[in-house]
Amino acid sequence: MSTRRDFLHLSAAATAAGVLAGPASAQAPSTDLGRPIPPAGGDALRLVTFTSGADGSPRLGVVRSDGRVVDLTGTALPGFDSRRMVSLIEAGPEALAAVRRAASAGEGLQLDTVRLLAPIPEPTRNIYAVGWNYLEHFEEGQAIRGTQAEYPAHPVFFTKGVNTINGPYDPIPYDATVSTAIDWEVELAVIIGKQGRNIQEADAMSHVFGYSVINDTTARDMQIKLHGGQWFKGKSLDKHGPIGPWIVPAADLDPSDLRLTTRVNGVIKQDATTKQMYFKLPRIIAELSRGLTLMPGDIIATGTPPGVGNARKPPEYLKPGDVMETEVAGIGTLRNVIQAVPA
Amino acid sequence: MSTRRDFLHLSAAATAAGVLAGPASAQAPSTDLGRPIPPAGGDALRLVTFTSGADGSPRLGVVRSDGRVVDLTGTALPGFDSRRMVSLIEAGPEALAAVRRAASAGEGLQLDTVRLLAPIPEPTRNIYAVGWNYLEHFEEGQAIRGTQAEYPAHPVFFTKGVNTINGPYDPIPYDATVSTAIDWEVELAVIIGKQGRNIQEADAMSHVFGYSVINDTTARDMQIKLHGGQWFKGKSLDKHGPIGPWIVPAADLDPSDLRLTTRVNGVIKQDATTKQMYFKLPRIIAELSRGLTLMPGDIIATGTPPGVGNARKPPEYLKPGDVMETEVAGIGTLRNVIQAVPA
Repeated sequence: MSTRRDFLHLSAAATAAGVLAGPASAQAPSTDLGRPIPPAGGDALRLVTFTSGADGSPRLGVVRSDGRVVDLTGTALPGFDSRRMVSLIEAGPEALAAVRRAASAGEGLQLDTVRLLAPIPEPTRNIYAVGWNYLEHFEEGQAIRGTQAEYPAHPVFFTKGVNTINGPYDPIPYDATVSTAIDWEVELAVIIGKQGRNIQEADAMSHVFGYSVINDTTARDMQIKLHGGQWFKGKSLDKHGPIGPWIVPAADLDPSDLRLTTRVNGVIKQDATTKQMYFKLPRIIAELSRGLTLMPGDIIATGTPPGVGNARKPPEYLKPGDVMETEVAGIGTLRNVIQAVPA
Repeated sequence: MSTRRDFLHLSAAATAAGVLAGPASAQAPSTDLGRPIPPAGGDALRLVTFTSGADGSPRLGVVRSDGRVVDLTGTALPGFDSRRMVSLIEAGPEALAAVRRAASAGEGLQLDTVRLLAPIPEPTRNIYAVGWNYLEHFEEGQAIRGTQAEYPAHPVFFTKGVNTINGPYDPIPYDATVSTAIDWEVELAVIIGKQGRNIQEADAMSHVFGYSVINDTTARDMQIKLHGGQWFKGKSLDKHGPIGPWIVPAADLDPSDLRLTTRVNGVIKQDATTKQMYFKLPRIIAELSRGLTLMPGDIIATGTPPGVGNARKPPEYLKPGDVMETEVAGIGTLRNVIQAVPA
């Protein structure tokens, strides 16, 4: 998608919103779309999958607090494939400790010379997702739904297709022949680190490898009206699940009270904290794993707070040229342009 | 799962149903569970993934009408990895023609000396599934649901997790702490052969590689009551999606009027034909691919006819020791024993 031709399709709205601002860099290969946003600070480890320069093959790296990117293929690290995030997750704590040491050494690359991909660009199963996990979001949708009056006693699970995976700064395709009711949903993403089935709540957090940011972008018409009440299809349009910009390991972040924000063209639409989650992470992991084996690298989108476009009066949906920013404080920010697909 | 210990857990009911009948073969490595059922005849090509003898690595093969299994790793075949069904699917018509030629030559292995796995043992995304695609099944469930009075104008889509994949003759784990309402659902499975998005109905059948049999085994309590009406979790318990025993290429089978049967302990529970499908295959493929790219090797379970246990009066559910047989005429039969997991 990151071609000059795509760039030319960007509307004036995107340009005005500053997506393309900043000094052009002669050696920057593909920052037309997708200029990385520097980390906000803090000492958390930021694990990325990225490409650099002419070599388009994905590799693992660390984005340091000073904004430099350390390429892990350039360092001697035992026990995992430096091209695959899931292999690092599976390699366990010692591998992660070695990555920390490697990250502190060396000069690193300039952040704006690399392209960050989704941290796990090709998951081997769909993204697990939790619905209605913030009471205010359940309530804001009630009038529209007309059904499901009572809040469920167990978490609501559905999936987003693997095809929804999108990079943290990549455009989101908009096909008006498919849907004109595309909506935003900021969510904390949990990355599973350890295989488990029938996981107990007390043990659940030991199965978490780390955290990321996901926007559970949704075609509301498909989700609610078209397919008999099952959400999968409306949640699963191509590239309608930007994720990243990196994974922060569980040891580096307390997920219990993180501010979640969505901004559209700079205007705040969602603004809440993970403290408002109805089902907390241990409960989600325990319930999801009942009879269902969770695997290292599995992704769980943990639900969105209120403020979605569909519940606004009048409803608001994304349109080509809009810039959607999705932030979880302590992790980072996604910035995606809505981009019409050529007819 | 196929260990001597598991074998000993099999109940008398399974033995009585003939699952373990037949002469013991000294060289048969793992037929304790999962004795293959010979093909019913006909000249269709039957593509399998199997293991043989001490070498437990999966490989591709063909089950001939004479019951012999031709190992495709033993033949010179261009353009695909003989260990991966999806690579054969991607390799296109010429590779398939070469497989046909290879299948007719050579002695082959005895069917009961091999273990058939799911044809695609490790899909890289969840199984797509269609709900309520037989009107009589929609109607039989209406009294139980109490909602969704009108038949949807578009196909209902949900997914089954990759963890549900199970072999055609392997046991299905039964964990009473998770669910005691496990139900059967015979379905025709479509295997996608060609990548596509926004596929037109007129073009849809050209995207089909072939057909298989799947049982969309379902935990009814989880599906209907526990998780706010979203079906994913109740459809996604580990190994609750036996599939196979092989893939029959589209050229070899007309899917429009195939008899579908489920038998439990020899008693017919579902008996219908694919002719009764409400949304036919072209419509399903066209609607599913709207804004969602289908890939070679993707699996679509196309819905179940009436006769499920949950709609019976009183309701019937599977219990440990039950033998569930799932048949689509013209393809083949799955035979799975329900097996209690050790506490």
